[in-house]
Amino acid sequence: MLPVVVVHGGAGFVPRQRSELSVSGVCSAAGSAYGILKGGGSSMDAVVNAVTLLENNPAFNAGIGSVLNVRGDIEMDALVMDGKTLASGAVSAVRNIANPTQLARLVMEKTSHACLTAEGASQFARAMGIPEVPVESLITDYSRMRWQKNLAADANPVECQMGKMGTVGAVAVDTEGNIACATSTGGMLNKMVGRVGDTPCIGSGGYADNNIGAVSTTGHGETIMKVTLARLILFNMEKGQSVEAASDSGLALMKSRVDGLGGVITVDPQGHWAARFSSLQMAWAAAQSDTLHYGLYTGEHFTQNIDDPESHYPKYKA
Amino acid sequence: MLPVVVVHGGAGFVPRQRSELSVSGVCSAAGSAYGILKGGGSSMDAVVNAVTLLENNPAFNAGIGSVLNVRGDIEMDALVMDGKTLASGAVSAVRNIANPTQLARLVMEKTSHACLTAEGASQFARAMGIPEVPVESLITDYSRMRWQKNLAADANPVECQMGKMGTVGAVAVDTEGNIACATSTGGMLNKMVGRVGDTPCIGSGGYADNNIGAVSTTGHGETIMKVTLARLILFNMEKGQSVEAASDSGLALMKSRVDGLGGVITVDPQGHWAARFSSLQMAWAAAQSDTLHYGLYTGEHFTQNIDDPESHYPKYKA
Repeated sequence: MLPVVVVHGGAGFVPRQRSELSVSGVCSAAGSAYGILKGGGSSMDAVVNAVTLLENNPAFNAGIGSVLNVRGDIEMDALVMDGKTLASGAVSAVRNIANPTQLARLVMEKTSHACLTAEGASQFARAMGIPEVPVESLITDYSRMRWQKNLAADANPVECQMGKMGTVGAVAVDTEGNIACATSTGGMLNKMVGRVGDTPCIGSGGYADNNIGAVSTTGHGETIMKVTLARLILFNMEKGQSVEAASDSGLALMKSRVDGLGGVITVDPQGHWAARFSSLQMAWAAAQSDTLHYGLYTGEHFTQNIDDPESHYPKYKA
Repeated sequence: MLPVVVVHGGAGFVPRQRSELSVSGVCSAAGSAYGILKGGGSSMDAVVNAVTLLENNPAFNAGIGSVLNVRGDIEMDALVMDGKTLASGAVSAVRNIANPTQLARLVMEKTSHACLTAEGASQFARAMGIPEVPVESLITDYSRMRWQKNLAADANPVECQMGKMGTVGAVAVDTEGNIACATSTGGMLNKMVGRVGDTPCIGSGGYADNNIGAVSTTGHGETIMKVTLARLILFNMEKGQSVEAASDSGLALMKSRVDGLGGVITVDPQGHWAARFSSLQMAWAAAQSDTLHYGLYTGEHFTQNIDDPESHYPKYKA
């Protein structure tokens, strides 16, 4: 059952013309991370690799392609967590960084802290030799079009956000049984300057514990925070629920108690995994036992041999 | 049993000459908040009142008297949470604000977000008409002395932090059964610029749910985050543990799993309460049924009539 990696590209609604980009993006990320795990790499290496690829892919709301805040600017959040030590690293409201997840990992590994924010995070990035990139290089035409459209007086930011692919993330268990998670986001469309969502908040945007499993979440951040969704699902697993039942009951509580939609990817130490969502869609992919699993709509679960990248995920070929 | 309010002034070590200041501070805050509850005020009004008083009291590491970061500057974090709606508000790394907890409440009540950070939080404060205060007005001679002392090459920031009164917080249940928590801090002595600790992180620095109870935490923030201490204790209560047992088992897990010390105050919907800590000391006070309870060292539990403020908490009179 080990190793295994599961990747998501955000809960929400994916316009038809972007479906193939989204599915191929998560499949490529899962395949790449799986290669690291098969080569003996750690779960932390795998999840950071997968999320870095999604940050670098303009089809997703993280890194390049991040949604814009109310001022047309980009502020990104990211989190990583190591299930062996329970150490975590996060950054919030970072602007000039191409790969916030890699910076979050450096916070975990190179400081005595768990989160750095805004200008302090930038200072740390410079001290670590991370190149600053112009914010403009992270803004896509699609992001700018959506920002302008949603500045309209009658726009509903929550509805708009659910109409955009959200946060990206990955969870993995390596051959040594170590578990890790990573989550990265451009946040919520037209958000206020300085808004921090669930992603960098340990227990909400993600959580990893070698004794229980790991979760990475996506959806409406403020609602995810109300129920600390990642930690909630792991508590459900501690009570004996399967990865699938625990994920579904966590999402069901979020719907019934605070009327929120979202999605999660979940693993346990044995390598059982789930990709579940209450939103219309969530692009997801998992790699295990040389098989690639993937889907986008509720109930979809396609498989193919992982060594067959040329198949181009035929169910989503344009 | 209702209403009830419990207040803490931080886990750690209180130098003898500051014991009376600390104990009288938490007792005054609890007494004031209890007056609000007796007058029909909400639990949210009560916890914000208590924490505001502690922020305004230079004996505590929040608001005026906050510890200084590595540059000799102040950056503060705060969180409030409403157990009825599960809505929360937080600010992180705010500099020019006398009462971060009041700003956190405004984030909850006046925005669609749950957390604002750094300059974005300052912009929001200005938009709300909150006066900016010079950082210098929040710095005490004691804070500056400790900062200079701990700049020494052989200083241990974690040890130093545990030698200083930490974070402050309050939890309360009002006569309508609504539950709230608030937590506020200057963070960790000599921390990096932009460091965000557990306090503004929902589930770590605090959590409130009318169905379960509320917790406010204090101690080494990075360690509290590893176990999402506030939510962990409430999960223990969901499994049937008492407020005291749930608090102790949460703190015990933090000690055994990640070698961390801290303290918590906890309430349940029936008005049972606990003030528990694994650190050497934690100044705490609770007000219920017209009785004031308070203590500082492990095992201490003094009581007096709440209408007898002139007693000056005789056990800690200098």
